[in-house]
Amino acid sequence: MKIAVDAMGGDFAPLETVRGAIAAVSEHDDIHVVLVGNEKQIFEILEAEGERNNSRLSVHHASEVIEMDEHPGVALRKKKDSSIVVATSLVKNKVCDAVVAPGSTGAAVAAALFGLGRIKGIDRPTIATPIPTRKGITVMLDSGANANSKPKHLIQGAIMGTEYAKLLLGKDNPTVGLLNIGEESTKGNDVVLSTYPVLENMKSINFYGNVEGRDIPKGTVDVVVCDGFVGNVVLKFAEGLITQCVELIKDAIMSGGIFAKLGALMVKPALKKLAKRLDYTENGGAPLLGVNGVFLISHGSSKAKEIKTAITIGNDLVKRKIIEHIADRIGKEGANDNEYAE
Amino acid sequence: MKIAVDAMGGDFAPLETVRGAIAAVSEHDDIHVVLVGNEKQIFEILEAEGERNNSRLSVHHASEVIEMDEHPGVALRKKKDSSIVVATSLVKNKVCDAVVAPGSTGAAVAAALFGLGRIKGIDRPTIATPIPTRKGITVMLDSGANANSKPKHLIQGAIMGTEYAKLLLGKDNPTVGLLNIGEESTKGNDVVLSTYPVLENMKSINFYGNVEGRDIPKGTVDVVVCDGFVGNVVLKFAEGLITQCVELIKDAIMSGGIFAKLGALMVKPALKKLAKRLDYTENGGAPLLGVNGVFLISHGSSKAKEIKTAITIGNDLVKRKIIEHIADRIGKEGANDNEYAE
Repeated sequence: MKIAVDAMGGDFAPLETVRGAIAAVSEHDDIHVVLVGNEKQIFEILEAEGERNNSRLSVHHASEVIEMDEHPGVALRKKKDSSIVVATSLVKNKVCDAVVAPGSTGAAVAAALFGLGRIKGIDRPTIATPIPTRKGITVMLDSGANANSKPKHLIQGAIMGTEYAKLLLGKDNPTVGLLNIGEESTKGNDVVLSTYPVLENMKSINFYGNVEGRDIPKGTVDVVVCDGFVGNVVLKFAEGLITQCVELIKDAIMSGGIFAKLGALMVKPALKKLAKRLDYTENGGAPLLGVNGVFLISHGSSKAKEIKTAITIGNDLVKRKIIEHIADRIGKEGANDNEYAE
Repeated sequence: MKIAVDAMGGDFAPLETVRGAIAAVSEHDDIHVVLVGNEKQIFEILEAEGERNNSRLSVHHASEVIEMDEHPGVALRKKKDSSIVVATSLVKNKVCDAVVAPGSTGAAVAAALFGLGRIKGIDRPTIATPIPTRKGITVMLDSGANANSKPKHLIQGAIMGTEYAKLLLGKDNPTVGLLNIGEESTKGNDVVLSTYPVLENMKSINFYGNVEGRDIPKGTVDVVVCDGFVGNVVLKFAEGLITQCVELIKDAIMSGGIFAKLGALMVKPALKKLAKRLDYTENGGAPLLGVNGVFLISHGSSKAKEIKTAITIGNDLVKRKIIEHIADRIGKEGANDNEYAE
C-alpha cells in the first residue's frame, strides 16, 4: 500500500513528517510512503536518519507549501504545486492509495474535495473523530468540515459514520445518535427536527434517537451525528476544559499538603492522557469521509508518532475498503430512499 | 423586594423550594418570597418547619403543575392555573419583582415569553450562564432558549450579555467574543459570518473577535455569544465530560497503590466541585434575559440551597436594574444602528 504524506504540512515539518514515515515503514512491511514536498530538504533528513536508500520511502517533489494562516480556497488556486495538492493528486492518479495531511484542516478539506471529488451520492465530506468514552470509542462526525449542515448532510453523515464505526469498532450494527438539546423528537433546531424522522425510518441505520451533549463522553451511542460547527466547538471546548481542569487541580493541590501533591502527580498524567485522546489529531488523524479516496487529517502540531499513526490508519482504511463500503451503502440508500429532506 | 417562586417546580418540590425560600428570607432582610403552588402542601411544609407565621413568606395558590415531560407550548395553553404561569403573572401584574422557576427550561422560557413579553427591541430571550474559568467567570449566552439564532439574535445577545456582565463581573467594559470554529473573520457558518461585521462596528460592544471552544474554559473573554443549540450542547457536554473524568480517574487510581488512592480522594471533590460550578443550575439559576422582568431558571434537581441562591440572584438583579439597563442599551442601539443583519 502506498501512502502519500504531505511532508511539508504542520508545525514540525518536514523533520517530524519524515521521521513519522520512517517509523511507519519500519513497523509495517506492507507500507510504502511517498513523501511529498521540497525534495532537497526531505533527502537531507533521510540522509541524516540513514534512510536515504530505504526502498519503501520515496520522495515526490512539490515546490510550494500552504501555510496555516492562508485562506484555503485562495491558497489552493494560487499554489498548484503545493505539497498538499500534489499529495492528493497522487491518490487521484492512483499512484498512491491514501493521503496523510497534517496542517491546516481547511486547506486539507479543500484539497481533498477538489482533488479527489466526492463519492457519488455524497454532497459534503465530513470529518469523523473517534472520541474516548468510558465504554470505549464513540465516533463523532462532523468535526468541522461542514459548518452549514442541512438535513441531507447529517443523514449522509449517519450512513458514513455507520460504515466507519463498523470498521473501527468491529460492530455489525453500530448505534447512531442525533446530537440535540433534548431527548424528545420535538426538540431542537430546524435542521435536526427535519433530520430525525428520516433517520428514524432508515432501515440501514440503527437509530438510537436524539442524544445530548452529556451522552458523548458517556458513550451512549457508537456514532454521534452533528453539524461541523457544533462538533468543532465541542472538540475544542473539551480540549480547553481538560487543560483548565489540570490547571485548576494543580492550583487546588499546590496549596495542599504532601498527600495532595502526590495526588496531583498521580492525576495529572491521567488527565493529560485523556486530553491527548480527545484531540483527534493526537490519535494520528481523523478520516475525511465522503471524498473519493482515503484522506487522513492530522493536527498541525503532529510529531513523528502521530504521523506514523495516521499512516497506519490510512493503510488500514484502504485495506478495509472504507470508500467501497460507503459508496455501496450510499448507492443502496439512494436507490431505496431518494427523498432525503433538503 | 418580592420574589415569586414556582414552589411546585423541579424534582424535589414543594419541600425543597419551600425550604429554599425559608433560607433566603432568613439570610436577607430585604427579601419577601411568594410561594406559588398547592397552598395546602405549602402550608403543611411551612407549619412543619415552624415558619407558618413568617411575615416575609406568603403563599399564592395555583391548582396545576407543568411536568418535566410535557410539551411546553401545549402545557402552557392547557394549564392556565399552573404554578409557573401564576408565578409569572405576579411579576407581570407588579405584585412581585422577580420569578424563580425550577423545573422544565422549555416551560419556563415559554411562560416568561408569554407572561412577561419581551423588552422592546429584543426578538428572542436568551439564557445567560456564568461559567467558571481559571481567570474567573465567563458569561455564555444563549444556553438553550433559542435553537435557531439569526444574526440579530446573536447581536442582541451581545448587548444583553454585556449589560449582565457589567453587573455580574463589575467590569465597565466587558469583552465579548463570538463563538466560532476559527479565529479568522472569514471562518464559520453563515450566521456567525453575518454577525461578525456588525459586532465589529458596534461602539457599545467591546468586541474581541471570534473565540473558539477552548477559549470558554480558558476565560479569554467576559462574554461568549453563541446560538442556543451550540451553547446547550457545550454545557451538557461539559457536565458529561467531567463526570466521566471523575470515573476514569477513579478507574485508573483504583488499580494503583496507596498514594494513588489518596490522590483520588483528594482530586475527586475538586472535580465534582467544578462539575457543580459548570452546571448553571447548580449556581442557583441562570437569568433568562430579554423578557420584561427578572426571571431565573433553576435546574429540575435544585434543592433548598440552589433555590435560595436563585432567589438571592433574582433580588440582586432587580436591585441592580438589569431590565432597565438592557432596555436602555437596546433602545440606544436601535436608534444608532437599526440596520442589524437579519
